[in-house]
Amino acid sequence: MDQVRIIEVKQSVFADNDKRAAELRRELKERGIFLLNLMSAPGSGKTTTLKRTVELLKDEIKIGVMEADIDSDVDARAMAAAGVKSIQLHTGGMCHLDADMTRQGLDELIDGDVELAILENVGNLVCPAEFDTGAVKNAAILSVPEGDDKPLKYPLMFQVCDVVLVNKIDVAPYFDFDLEKCKEYVRMRNPAARVIPICAKTGEGVDQWADWLREQVREWRS
Amino acid sequence: MDQVRIIEVKQSVFADNDKRAAELRRELKERGIFLLNLMSAPGSGKTTTLKRTVELLKDEIKIGVMEADIDSDVDARAMAAAGVKSIQLHTGGMCHLDADMTRQGLDELIDGDVELAILENVGNLVCPAEFDTGAVKNAAILSVPEGDDKPLKYPLMFQVCDVVLVNKIDVAPYFDFDLEKCKEYVRMRNPAARVIPICAKTGEGVDQWADWLREQVREWRS
Repeated sequence: MDQVRIIEVKQSVFADNDKRAAELRRELKERGIFLLNLMSAPGSGKTTTLKRTVELLKDEIKIGVMEADIDSDVDARAMAAAGVKSIQLHTGGMCHLDADMTRQGLDELIDGDVELAILENVGNLVCPAEFDTGAVKNAAILSVPEGDDKPLKYPLMFQVCDVVLVNKIDVAPYFDFDLEKCKEYVRMRNPAARVIPICAKTGEGVDQWADWLREQVREWRS
Repeated sequence: MDQVRIIEVKQSVFADNDKRAAELRRELKERGIFLLNLMSAPGSGKTTTLKRTVELLKDEIKIGVMEADIDSDVDARAMAAAGVKSIQLHTGGMCHLDADMTRQGLDELIDGDVELAILENVGNLVCPAEFDTGAVKNAAILSVPEGDDKPLKYPLMFQVCDVVLVNKIDVAPYFDFDLEKCKEYVRMRNPAARVIPICAKTGEGVDQWADWLREQVREWRS
C-alpha cells in the first residue's frame, strides 16, 4: 500500500472561528466543493460507513477524505485501500478540528478535482460539536450499542447535525435500543434533522444515506 | 424519587492542575477517602457498571458517586435509585473534569462518612485523560462494540488507566472483537494495566472488578 500522507494540523490562533468557518464555506461554494463533517463517539463506525459511502458514490462524484485522529494512520490506510484519495490529519492530542485546521487539511487534499471532501472528525461527542469546521453539512453517527439516550446527554452534537445515522442496526435485537425514542430525542434537539438507520457492516440502509448525500452535493454545486 | 442534587462546576482558573490534583490526593489520603475516576466513550456502560459495583460493595464500604454530565441528570437519578449517595455535576458544556471541579463535587458529596468516592467522568476518550482529577486510581471502560483497536487511537486514555474493563462481553459473538489483541494494545500503552472482561448487564465478571476495587480501597485506607 502507498504511504499515507500525514498532516500535523496546528490549532488556530484565531479566536473568531465562526467567521473563518464562514469564509471557508464561501470559498468552497465558489470552487464547487462540498465539505461534509462526520462526527461520532469512538467506535461508532465512522470509517466503515465512509468505506460503504465511497463504494456507492466514487464512480459519479470525485471524493477526497480527511481522517482526523490523535495518533495512528489506521483510518487513512483503510480509506486509501477503498480506492479514494485520503490523508491523515494528526491533531497532536487535540479533541476536535476547527475551521483553520480543516483548511490545512483541505489545502493538502484538494488539487483541483475533488467535488466532495469528507472530514472524519475525532471520535468525540462533545468538543467537535463546538467548532464550526466550515463544512456545508454536519452528520453524526450514533450506534445502537451506545443507547438511544445519547441526544439527551450530548445535546449540542445533535443540535448541530443535519443528519443522524443510526448505525449497527443489525445488532438491535441484542440491545435495549428504541429507534422511535431515539428519533424523538433527536427531534427534541433538532426538529429538522434526518434520521437514517443503517448497518455499515452489511450495507443495509447505506443507499438512503448515499441518496441524501448525493442530493446535497448536487444542490451545493448547482 | 428524591430530587437529585445538581452542582454546576466551574472550570479552574489555575493552570497548575497537576499540583492541585496532588494536593487533593494528599487530603484524601489523610481523610481516608479513596477516589476512583471512571472514564469511557459515550455509551460504553459506565452507569450500568457503577450500579453493579455499588450492589456488590455498598454493604461493606460507604460509597458516594459523582455523575459528571454536560446536561441532564439521568445518571445521578439512576445511581440514587440504586440506593447510593449521588450528586450530578453539570460541566456546562465542558468535555472533562479537572482537580478543582472534582473538589467542588467532593465538597458537596462528602459529609464525613464516604470511604469510596466514584467520579463518573464525561463520556469522552480524549479530554478527560489529559486532566488529573486527583483520583487515587483511574479506570476506563472499553465496550466490545467500539472495537479492539481503541488503545491505538486514543493512546493517552489507556496510558493513564490502572484498569480497563472490557464491557458488553456478552455480545462479542456479534462483533469482530479480539480480546487478546485488545489486551496486547492496552499493554502497548500501559504494561501495568489490568484488563478485566465484564458484562455489566448480566453481572458477568463484575465480581473480579469489585475484588480489585475493594483491595485498592483497603490498601489506601490502611
